[in-house]
Amino acid sequence: MSGRIAIAGVGLIGGSFGLALKAAGYDGEIVGLGRDAERLAAAVRLGAIDRGETDAVAGVAGAEVVLLAVPMGSMRAVLAALAPGLEPGAIVTDAGSVKGSFVRDARAALGSLERVVPGHPIAGTEHSGVAAAFPELYAGRRVILTPLPETEEAGVVRVERLWRMTGACTERLSVEAHDRLLAATSHLPHMLAFGLVDALARGDDPGAVFRYAAGGFRDFTRIASSDPVMWRDICLANRDALLGALEAYRDDLDALTEEVRAGDGAGLLARFQRAKTARDRFCG
Amino acid sequence: MSGRIAIAGVGLIGGSFGLALKAAGYDGEIVGLGRDAERLAAAVRLGAIDRGETDAVAGVAGAEVVLLAVPMGSMRAVLAALAPGLEPGAIVTDAGSVKGSFVRDARAALGSLERVVPGHPIAGTEHSGVAAAFPELYAGRRVILTPLPETEEAGVVRVERLWRMTGACTERLSVEAHDRLLAATSHLPHMLAFGLVDALARGDDPGAVFRYAAGGFRDFTRIASSDPVMWRDICLANRDALLGALEAYRDDLDALTEEVRAGDGAGLLARFQRAKTARDRFCG
Repeated sequence: MSGRIAIAGVGLIGGSFGLALKAAGYDGEIVGLGRDAERLAAAVRLGAIDRGETDAVAGVAGAEVVLLAVPMGSMRAVLAALAPGLEPGAIVTDAGSVKGSFVRDARAALGSLERVVPGHPIAGTEHSGVAAAFPELYAGRRVILTPLPETEEAGVVRVERLWRMTGACTERLSVEAHDRLLAATSHLPHMLAFGLVDALARGDDPGAVFRYAAGGFRDFTRIASSDPVMWRDICLANRDALLGALEAYRDDLDALTEEVRAGDGAGLLARFQRAKTARDRFCG
Repeated sequence: MSGRIAIAGVGLIGGSFGLALKAAGYDGEIVGLGRDAERLAAAVRLGAIDRGETDAVAGVAGAEVVLLAVPMGSMRAVLAALAPGLEPGAIVTDAGSVKGSFVRDARAALGSLERVVPGHPIAGTEHSGVAAAFPELYAGRRVILTPLPETEEAGVVRVERLWRMTGACTERLSVEAHDRLLAATSHLPHMLAFGLVDALARGDDPGAVFRYAAGGFRDFTRIASSDPVMWRDICLANRDALLGALEAYRDDLDALTEEVRAGDGAGLLARFQRAKTARDRFCG
């Protein structure tokens, strides 16, 4: 495949996208957009982009596909900044963790959504920045696209082909189904982990707590080392679905707490067995 | 070291204890106690014990040290069954996850606690049974002993030496400090994981939820595959400390939920940064 691609935000996600396309033989030019010329120069040296542009309008000039891989809190401002430079047929896609907020941002900044293909690669590491990028990040991972009824099919297919070049599998979901699913499987677990680590760190003897940390807690602490700004943005962007998940979880935790309080061994055993059965059934 | 050792409950924990001592050259006889003669025969074949006994009194005859590695719900009954066979100077120790309940069980079954050394190896896997036992299970792991004021020092030292032969590090804590610490670092995280997996499994589309499971959720599902009976016993045995941890956590989760509801980005960011700072500070 060829054609110019612009990547706004050349960090772990955007940088790995560029590296993966180049590794797969993509022969169009890949332009990186960013505010920091030195970081763009580093991305060029690493081979993630062919050249960098700090001016958004100049950066998207001539691009057939524009990928937004910026923090969700910056999405609307970046879209507004590059909008005047977009080619008439340019396809705009993104890599944000919440699709409803991207659709709102794109509608506000671009008006028409016919060539907007919201996307979310389910991939990442605990690190950030282009220095952490690598071409295999998306190999075997899922990328969920959430085209709207007005999105032109040709644009969706174009974005699917690009992601498949990176080694990812693509799937389509509605915006609402995506955001509800991710609230349950990713955003809520992160909230629980951040909450636990924070609660323990403010307890009587955090040094001892972390020193004696057993298996269960270790997994939590690893989750809680994720980027705080990204997670604030996710909470704000996916507020409604996350609130629903938090409230449902709280009801469940209350019921479990009551069983502990009452010494209800039969109730606790049934609850733990349901969880283990589901895990073994779905996760093999 | 030598002297006869009796292990009541030759599963993952008891079996690995026997295998580790033998691998380290322990030259006393190791006797396994259990209800199932075939399982004891398997433990002999695997080299975890020298011989098995289904009669508790016969099993502890002549033993200088008795390790209880049975489910916590069976602890009191097993102690009562073997008590009549205990040698006058025999040291009784255990491997249960909750120390307060073991002390209550030992007091009820044995009366005197002078030669009782409550212990808890912070080690295990998702598997159970003697077939899952291996001699390196305790290598580099912590074993917390919680001797009581009346416990004779010689017995504590004897148990410490045995655990160190398995490759573990030993530490001493009070019963109360141990149970509070483990409630926070192990029991509470397991409750949160069981609760989450159970809640999602009973949701609209559990198949999709588990299929799209992202990083955060995968860690939870692994935790939730632990043995339900063991966790029921832990909940009942450490009820008070676990309730305190659950209630403190609920207050924290409520505060976080309110920040999400209010769209309080500054509050959320501060919370996530505190968690990340604590994690990076204590976990390196």
